[in-house]
Amino acid sequence: MSTDTVLIEPVAPAGSGTMKALVYHGPGKRAWEDRPKPAIQEPTDAVIRLTTATICGTDLHILKGDVPSVTPGRILGHEGIGIVVNVGNAVTGVHVGDRVLISCITSCGKCDYCKKGMYSHCRAGGWILGNTIDGTQAEFVRIPHADNSLYLVPPGGDEEGLVMLSDILPTGFECGVLNGAVKPGDTVAIVGAGPIGLAVLLTSQFYSPGSVIMIDLDDNRLRVAQGFGATAVINSADGKAVERVMELTGGTGVDVAVEAVGTPATFDICQSILAPGGHLANVGVHGKPAQLRLEKLWDRNITLTTRLVDTVTTPMLLKVVQSGKLQPSKLVTHRFALSDVMKAYDTFGNAAKESALKVILKNQPAR
Amino acid sequence: MSTDTVLIEPVAPAGSGTMKALVYHGPGKRAWEDRPKPAIQEPTDAVIRLTTATICGTDLHILKGDVPSVTPGRILGHEGIGIVVNVGNAVTGVHVGDRVLISCITSCGKCDYCKKGMYSHCRAGGWILGNTIDGTQAEFVRIPHADNSLYLVPPGGDEEGLVMLSDILPTGFECGVLNGAVKPGDTVAIVGAGPIGLAVLLTSQFYSPGSVIMIDLDDNRLRVAQGFGATAVINSADGKAVERVMELTGGTGVDVAVEAVGTPATFDICQSILAPGGHLANVGVHGKPAQLRLEKLWDRNITLTTRLVDTVTTPMLLKVVQSGKLQPSKLVTHRFALSDVMKAYDTFGNAAKESALKVILKNQPAR
Amino acid sequence: MSTDTVLIEPVAPAGSGTMKALVYHGPGKRAWEDRPKPAIQEPTDAVIRLTTATICGTDLHILKGDVPSVTPGRILGHEGIGIVVNVGNAVTGVHVGDRVLISCITSCGKCDYCKKGMYSHCRAGGWILGNTIDGTQAEFVRIPHADNSLYLVPPGGDEEGLVMLSDILPTGFECGVLNGAVKPGDTVAIVGAGPIGLAVLLTSQFYSPGSVIMIDLDDNRLRVAQGFGATAVINSADGKAVERVMELTGGTGVDVAVEAVGTPATFDICQSILAPGGHLANVGVHGKPAQLRLEKLWDRNITLTTRLVDTVTTPMLLKVVQSGKLQPSKLVTHRFALSDVMKAYDTFGNAAKESALKVILKNQPAR
Amino acid sequence: MSTDTVLIEPVAPAGSGTMKALVYHGPGKRAWEDRPKPAIQEPTDAVIRLTTATICGTDLHILKGDVPSVTPGRILGHEGIGIVVNVGNAVTGVHVGDRVLISCITSCGKCDYCKKGMYSHCRAGGWILGNTIDGTQAEFVRIPHADNSLYLVPPGGDEEGLVMLSDILPTGFECGVLNGAVKPGDTVAIVGAGPIGLAVLLTSQFYSPGSVIMIDLDDNRLRVAQGFGATAVINSADGKAVERVMELTGGTGVDVAVEAVGTPATFDICQSILAPGGHLANVGVHGKPAQLRLEKLWDRNITLTTRLVDTVTTPMLLKVVQSGKLQPSKLVTHRFALSDVMKAYDTFGNAAKESALKVILKNQPAR
Repeated sequence: MSTDTVLIEPVAPAGSGTMKALVYHGPGKRAWEDRPKPAIQEPTDAVIRLTTATICGTDLHILKGDVPSVTPGRILGHEGIGIVVNVGNAVTGVHVGDRVLISCITSCGKCDYCKKGMYSHCRAGGWILGNTIDGTQAEFVRIPHADNSLYLVPPGGDEEGLVMLSDILPTGFECGVLNGAVKPGDTVAIVGAGPIGLAVLLTSQFYSPGSVIMIDLDDNRLRVAQGFGATAVINSADGKAVERVMELTGGTGVDVAVEAVGTPATFDICQSILAPGGHLANVGVHGKPAQLRLEKLWDRNITLTTRLVDTVTTPMLLKVVQSGKLQPSKLVTHRFALSDVMKAYDTFGNAAKESALKVILKNQPAR
Repeated sequence: MSTDTVLIEPVAPAGSGTMKALVYHGPGKRAWEDRPKPAIQEPTDAVIRLTTATICGTDLHILKGDVPSVTPGRILGHEGIGIVVNVGNAVTGVHVGDRVLISCITSCGKCDYCKKGMYSHCRAGGWILGNTIDGTQAEFVRIPHADNSLYLVPPGGDEEGLVMLSDILPTGFECGVLNGAVKPGDTVAIVGAGPIGLAVLLTSQFYSPGSVIMIDLDDNRLRVAQGFGATAVINSADGKAVERVMELTGGTGVDVAVEAVGTPATFDICQSILAPGGHLANVGVHGKPAQLRLEKLWDRNITLTTRLVDTVTTPMLLKVVQSGKLQPSKLVTHRFALSDVMKAYDTFGNAAKESALKVILKNQPAR
Repeated sequence: MSTDTVLIEPVAPAGSGTMKALVYHGPGKRAWEDRPKPAIQEPTDAVIRLTTATICGTDLHILKGDVPSVTPGRILGHEGIGIVVNVGNAVTGVHVGDRVLISCITSCGKCDYCKKGMYSHCRAGGWILGNTIDGTQAEFVRIPHADNSLYLVPPGGDEEGLVMLSDILPTGFECGVLNGAVKPGDTVAIVGAGPIGLAVLLTSQFYSPGSVIMIDLDDNRLRVAQGFGATAVINSADGKAVERVMELTGGTGVDVAVEAVGTPATFDICQSILAPGGHLANVGVHGKPAQLRLEKLWDRNITLTTRLVDTVTTPMLLKVVQSGKLQPSKLVTHRFALSDVMKAYDTFGNAAKESALKVILKNQPAR
Repeated sequence: MSTDTVLIEPVAPAGSGTMKALVYHGPGKRAWEDRPKPAIQEPTDAVIRLTTATICGTDLHILKGDVPSVTPGRILGHEGIGIVVNVGNAVTGVHVGDRVLISCITSCGKCDYCKKGMYSHCRAGGWILGNTIDGTQAEFVRIPHADNSLYLVPPGGDEEGLVMLSDILPTGFECGVLNGAVKPGDTVAIVGAGPIGLAVLLTSQFYSPGSVIMIDLDDNRLRVAQGFGATAVINSADGKAVERVMELTGGTGVDVAVEAVGTPATFDICQSILAPGGHLANVGVHGKPAQLRLEKLWDRNITLTTRLVDTVTTPMLLKVVQSGKLQPSKLVTHRFALSDVMKAYDTFGNAAKESALKVILKNQPAR
């Protein structure tokens, strides 16, 4: 153990011994297996013992082999809460024993992009956890640039709800609500009622829109959306979502359309329902181009945005959760022990059938 | 003559007698012919005797038959300066005898869109001049909603320069520079060095960009752009504009890309040269869809905008012209008597061969 | 009756006959008396038959003689809802028979200030109703620039609640909430729990602040504030409001302090509780200077704003009321027939004793 | 020398031996004397060998005893450029041998204030150089949080001009121009034509104001201001500055008033010349309160700001200097060897008599 690190008992020293982790072994292959515990590598690192983690839709994409930056042998996961067990000698903002939220975006805080608030494009970070470095679906994880990439969990904070702040809530809020510029009284449509679309719905309410229309193919998710405050829901299976939105808006269209799926078809719904002056906020991860109807949109004064979440609003979101105005634990439908993560993937991978939104992975305190 | 109007001598009363005008007679056909003088129709109207007008690229599109809202018999033109000869009884902001700038956008100032500053989508106006009502390439023109659609020309104002504020300068400024959010030190690329692209170039300098790269197929226009302050020019004929921009920006791309042509190919250049966090401001009029490379852009934090000019910045532009910081008359390459407008169209219609940018039409003071 | 106006039955034609009105006769003197019915004077005027009106704190100031622009003989009142009974020939946005909300700010929509959204400083309007022209505490009122100064009441709209949109709600929202730049999670303090302070409280919730601290001398009003969502209340009678706020905020101070009283002492509380980077939004009407502690504030990165309400957010507020997110009728504590307006003034003038917030004046439909 | 630092030849190792420095010894007392060379104390530190420094008006205030946080024995100075001679093991953005600009504001980049872009209020920094830790008027200086507090000097960068980016230019730009929200065509007044006021003047031109009125008591400085682009100058010695500004603005007042002196009297000029909707940007350091004329301003829709420079715009300013649009070396009037700093203080301390703006201190490369 290096002299620049600190250790607390009774946890075995990070950097020695092994731990269990969910490891990607190429398309379709994953295992819960032994891996060396992570150690401090840079003076700005911290090592965290996970207490709560979760699975993201992106993890399923990785398992399909759709994310080439993830290579076999990688520990997956970019969301979690845990206890700091070790810090490098340049870390000053978190200390051993602190309970911390892990941001899905690692950021140095000092490069040109970080200085502009674009942590997503940090020269020394960005989305690297469970992607180009080992992630959070494990007993321990090393977090680079710990001071900027971890957030203290407020005393009494509910881990199941707060772990949604690792990724899904800032993603919905920044890419959907802020980029969409939702204003009081606005008419908002959200295409996609999965966990991300629901996170957009929940956080859109910070700005008191007049109505929020939710569009999806899954009636169960639309029912959940109604419970979360959607003022209208549309099942788009009949191909008439655009007509329905135009009817609901008296032929005007919406002020804000949020794309939360990631396909040309759902993008097309969004661009077809925008009122003049409207905002189209893309949240979905796209694998192919879409057609942009510039011949109709060139004179419509629209704004279209894309964004990889920067997590710059995490401090704001923590304050709103603290105030009780946001209950992110609403998104949790299933709970597993971390050691049952293989089963958790099976459930989450059959989300429609299982009526799954977010699945919680709890790590036992002692081992 | 109705009692609610006012008359000045020695001009013959608008509303009686005839005048000369440039009339569209279907695709490819135009004539300089006699038409009745316009009269006040609504209490908010004014009638203007034109002293200076000009021709817009849009007028050429109309003549090709590309703008179906323009029907045969229509007097063309949506740019001009003139003298007020008659006002309705609810007009209070301009008076008979005032010299006024005519905005290409007619706006009531009181509908929901006008209240948001979106004059382009005014419920009772928008772009109607030389489109759905008779326009400015004539000796007289009726301007609805005169108080909101005319601007007093400052004493001593140069008409040749100021007539550029009818359309081209607010278009370049609002759709290109403001929507592109040009900031001091930024790297800007403008695709298209025609009059509109040059208007973007001129007005981008209000915000002190660090460099402005101009891209076009016409070396003459690129030379003009250099004279107007472009820091680099690229002739895109070899299909390597994207590579050249990436070289010039050290592989990063530009902060702002302005599309000032209106084709899928030029749009594609713009989306291919954006730095993360960049803005793509569309100014061009598009006749067909473009492909949007969402598979590359979804995580690039970009903002794409479209806009029909609102002319809400006309008061600001008038102040900047008054201060001497902007010399819009630089854009004028040819001058004709209004009565030679048929010849002026020939010249403007062969812009490349004639090295034409904007052509001025001067109306004789007495008749 | 002029030919350019329209008449509906059974109402007697505006512009002929008399009506009842509350008239100011110099400091301390008011009467409910006969006055000529107002007629259309300009083509942009409308005449409204009041159905609901209310009394503003400013009316009490006028009665004390504190507002020199108001001269004896003036009909008071700048808030109300009613039915259009007559319009000038240039009015196109409202029609005879429409139910309309009267804005306390009259605006032409076309002067330089109106074009900037500063209706409060309209060259031909501003706050003139019940000030320099006759107001709304009457059976009929003439509204200049009707198209821009009236708003259609949505079908089914509750007049008692909507009449709060004439003045108090846009004042609280624009001068307090928007100028204060309230953001999700913010800590807000509002000094003054009268109707205006409570309007700030209600509309601050459009942006989901984390906590709202209400400060006043009247325990009853503080109780009301708690019912309206204040998360903490402070009775400042002991002179320790600043200390209490600093305790509540862990020594940091507030993100937004709203001054809703109009005295040097309450202003001083506001400037003493600001966190670095905080906003001080002045809403109160001040009769004398205040001391600005620049020796403490020069390096605190604060923003201080003043504003006379512009009512540019009235369309937004109407949408939020329609959505059910705002119940402005909560502010109503007393109801009178318009013909009992003298008694209503007695009640409103003893607000503390009467536990009065807003008093409603209802005009009988038939006469 | 610790093992976590790096050394370049032929410079003697920082952290061993002595150097010369300008030391404060209580009110009125300063000396150029031997001091130990600074060493790395934290892993985020760097040590810089100064090549260029300068003196700030604040240094004169310190010498008068006006800044109690500065205690005897302190090395003064918070501006400079130099060569990195040593870095802590967590520093990654600058390397030994790099030429760097030292920001007057030290910032960790990761505390709550830094994350909001308020480096001035950094929990671990802020204005500490030459204040609570030793400063830059010395042969060497230790810079904490080096990655966020130093900026690489572009190749070929002119040190005399660039050293103005340590403090004066970001101060003028952020506190005056950005906080004042200068827009194209605006009328701007700057009260105070010292170095800071002139920095406001220079950087205001990034936004193309229509006119800039400069107000001071010193005709020489006003002449300089005219050379720098002021469109009008007013010597306020006769107490009629307000009247003169109102004449120049046709009775309207200015869009932006910048206070760049720090006295109640100059603040009062600023608040008296604001147009409705105007911005008052305070830049001056104030020692006492000012009277705020709320009885006149409450309904004028004004915005008043204060700010300690955050230096968040330093990257933007570097880009603008690189583009040639800003020549900050214009502000340099005198040059001294660093070893003549005692004489340089004499000159700068008699700025009016010496016609001094900024004095440059050059350190000899070898010793």
